[in-house]
Amino acid sequence: MSKVSPEIKKELGLVHVYTGPGKGKTTACLGLAFRASGRGLEVLMIQFLKPSENYGEHLAAERIPNFTILPLGLDHMVSKVPRDIDIRIAKETLQRAKEEIYSGKYDLVILDEINNTMDWKLLDPEEVIGVLKGRPKNVEIVLSGRGAPKKIIEYADLVTEMGLIKHPFDKGVSARKGIEY
Amino acid sequence: MSKVSPEIKKELGLVHVYTGPGKGKTTACLGLAFRASGRGLEVLMIQFLKPSENYGEHLAAERIPNFTILPLGLDHMVSKVPRDIDIRIAKETLQRAKEEIYSGKYDLVILDEINNTMDWKLLDPEEVIGVLKGRPKNVEIVLSGRGAPKKIIEYADLVTEMGLIKHPFDKGVSARKGIEY
Repeated sequence: MSKVSPEIKKELGLVHVYTGPGKGKTTACLGLAFRASGRGLEVLMIQFLKPSENYGEHLAAERIPNFTILPLGLDHMVSKVPRDIDIRIAKETLQRAKEEIYSGKYDLVILDEINNTMDWKLLDPEEVIGVLKGRPKNVEIVLSGRGAPKKIIEYADLVTEMGLIKHPFDKGVSARKGIEY
Repeated sequence: MSKVSPEIKKELGLVHVYTGPGKGKTTACLGLAFRASGRGLEVLMIQFLKPSENYGEHLAAERIPNFTILPLGLDHMVSKVPRDIDIRIAKETLQRAKEEIYSGKYDLVILDEINNTMDWKLLDPEEVIGVLKGRPKNVEIVLSGRGAPKKIIEYADLVTEMGLIKHPFDKGVSARKGIEY
């Protein structure tokens, strides 16, 4: 990839939130990563709730040199009453996210489904905001997932809530390869 | 790309709508295209309101052999009172979309910002639904853009409304290369 112009980098540094019950939060993050990588930005997506690599996005990201996806963290099936191991893994994933954000290697870092981990009390929003506040200037951050806490919404520059109007899962359609994952 | 398994294709054929005033509609479409292309599906995005090719997504799509973006249609700056030429271009773009959908070449076809053209009375929702109804089975369709008409929402299988909670444009930040386009 060609080096990104300083003019593009200079404008970066905002915090986005995608939340709400509707479909399209992780999908919007992927689209943002795709667009940014097209401009030559270095993009990292850390997935807080995807331990496996069997997703269409992982297969696609392998083809893009300046877009990396790290599926870390917990499984979707975590209990809503946090266990010690759930909390430990969430904290370790946040620590890893901090190291990557602070490394200076990335222009855009997406913390996919981190909102859920705060909603479930595995991570404290203040802890997450602390990590973000100390980041190098010009690193753009995206936080996705249901249940973004109020403090996170207050801290963010840009917040979109995905509302669920209609979903085929209600009609018995299950998640499909290539579309939902 | 490897050929897609018939099991994946067999499950396709639904209609998605991304609408609402919030950020992330086109971005979610790009993410969906990215994921589907990773699975080897053939993806086409027709942009109803982007005549130029100076977008991060166009640069990124060039690197993905099974993902094509066609920037057709009108400029964003179209008058809200439709002129004859606005209507003609919208109809031509729909006709082109129909040809591509019916060609059998694509598994997923995204009609980006087509909702706006219906909202502005350039296209009749019945006309669009007519095109979709006659499509080959197993072609998945996505309609994006503000102001999706009620008939479209009724016809769709999956509808997400992007709500605008907070946007940095309110604070004087303008659209940034690599993030917003």
